[in-house]
Amino acid sequence: MDRIEIQQLEKSFGKKKVLRDVSCVIEEGHIYGLLGRNGAGKSTLLNIINNRMRAEEGQVLYNGQNIRENDGLLQELFLVNDTILFKREETEKVASYFKHAALFYPDFDENLCHHLVAAFDMDTSLRLSKLSTGYRSIFNIILALCVPARFIFLDEPILGLDANHRDLFYKELVDAFMERPRTFVLSTHLIEEVARLIDSVLILDKGMIQVADTVEAVTEKAWSLTGASQDVDAYAGQLNVIGVEYLGNQTTLYVYDDVSRLPDTIQKQKLELQKLFIMMTNRLEEK
Amino acid sequence: MDRIEIQQLEKSFGKKKVLRDVSCVIEEGHIYGLLGRNGAGKSTLLNIINNRMRAEEGQVLYNGQNIRENDGLLQELFLVNDTILFKREETEKVASYFKHAALFYPDFDENLCHHLVAAFDMDTSLRLSKLSTGYRSIFNIILALCVPARFIFLDEPILGLDANHRDLFYKELVDAFMERPRTFVLSTHLIEEVARLIDSVLILDKGMIQVADTVEAVTEKAWSLTGASQDVDAYAGQLNVIGVEYLGNQTTLYVYDDVSRLPDTIQKQKLELQKLFIMMTNRLEEK
Repeated sequence: MDRIEIQQLEKSFGKKKVLRDVSCVIEEGHIYGLLGRNGAGKSTLLNIINNRMRAEEGQVLYNGQNIRENDGLLQELFLVNDTILFKREETEKVASYFKHAALFYPDFDENLCHHLVAAFDMDTSLRLSKLSTGYRSIFNIILALCVPARFIFLDEPILGLDANHRDLFYKELVDAFMERPRTFVLSTHLIEEVARLIDSVLILDKGMIQVADTVEAVTEKAWSLTGASQDVDAYAGQLNVIGVEYLGNQTTLYVYDDVSRLPDTIQKQKLELQKLFIMMTNRLEEK
Repeated sequence: MDRIEIQQLEKSFGKKKVLRDVSCVIEEGHIYGLLGRNGAGKSTLLNIINNRMRAEEGQVLYNGQNIRENDGLLQELFLVNDTILFKREETEKVASYFKHAALFYPDFDENLCHHLVAAFDMDTSLRLSKLSTGYRSIFNIILALCVPARFIFLDEPILGLDANHRDLFYKELVDAFMERPRTFVLSTHLIEEVARLIDSVLILDKGMIQVADTVEAVTEKAWSLTGASQDVDAYAGQLNVIGVEYLGNQTTLYVYDDVSRLPDTIQKQKLELQKLFIMMTNRLEEK
């Protein structure tokens, strides 16, 4: 299995530190959610991994080789986001762009491309610059699902999509993944919806990786604990508490920790991934 | 209770018919979700209600009076969307804009404005043109919650907001509504999230109002019906079917109808509002 290792990346814009000692591993055969608040550094991280931006420190390795030192490795990575594409190619028509992609990538999946154009009801006679926000996203999605790269990065792929097109994207992504397992890394704010798709999660907050694990392992540690305040408060010091609420003499602790040893007097309820994310990143903001 | 009656609106852009015979009533004291696919005509409808655009046919009445014939009535309506505001005022600073709003609207809620600026961590020294997509949305939300109008329309208010800021918006909207009941009409694609907030729903599709009712009444009629194909198929002709799936000799019908008289051999399951919306508007698209 191929893997990308991200090692101790540091990146600043002017005086603002955007990434601080970011390290993580992205393995082939998984669908990752890259989650973070606005301004957390997600797009910067994706640009550095894909060699579109330089970090001041650290490196990105593909199977142990630095991606900056081997152009062939970059063929295995593909990033779609709004910024890069449209400045270069905005007068080109969609159909012509797809044709060029098929020439550039000999294994570009033209059958899937035709299927997706029909499914999303995309007008390929339009110039890229004339696409609505929703159809710019759809254009990016089609490219990302059809290129033969092994690691596909989608930065905010569902921006401006209505519920029907989001639903279709989720279905087509899973179908494409089943057909040819590879790696997808999606950055998005719609955590509740993608929680059904992704199997692994990277939470970036304030330029640091706060969580890197499978969705299963993450949600196994995400709990709300409710009970009489004297019972619950006794455990607050031993647990990784990410939020707290009081109601009368009841306390609710939100924790990211192993809670298997807690007594039955404390009522345990699992937190959804989006709720965990909100509590965890609100907390870090307050520090 | 004040009310807005929208009567038989017709609107075209060039050859494209955007609204066809649109009629509905918006009553004071409710939170409405205005739901529709991209291009369904939501923004056009909101612009016409708020007298920022003219319809070719039909009228908008406020307590029976045509809003075009009485400027005073328009004071009771307030629409925030991205388009209008920023062309006029883009060099103004956020703080100065809020000050002018307070002068223009004597009952502008300055206390709430201060609270929201702090809660959303908004930098009011920035010029409007320098705001990120997320903070443009937040700026609009703050205005909308603080103006004294009785009918507040928000067109895509949560565009670009991360999960934390969306969560905060939902909480602040409900708080503001409890504090001073008025009417909010939200257009959005994040149906699953707003389903918890809204009490009434307007579904616009292909320029027509397809559903106008309370959320409770709508979800009471939204079902999936699963059973042996021979049992289920017998009812397909009598029900308003919006989707169908087959698996082996089982059929699942998605319906928008009263299903109380169906036998127990058919398994009934409620549809979430977002799922209902997707099925209903996919179906209409196919016609």
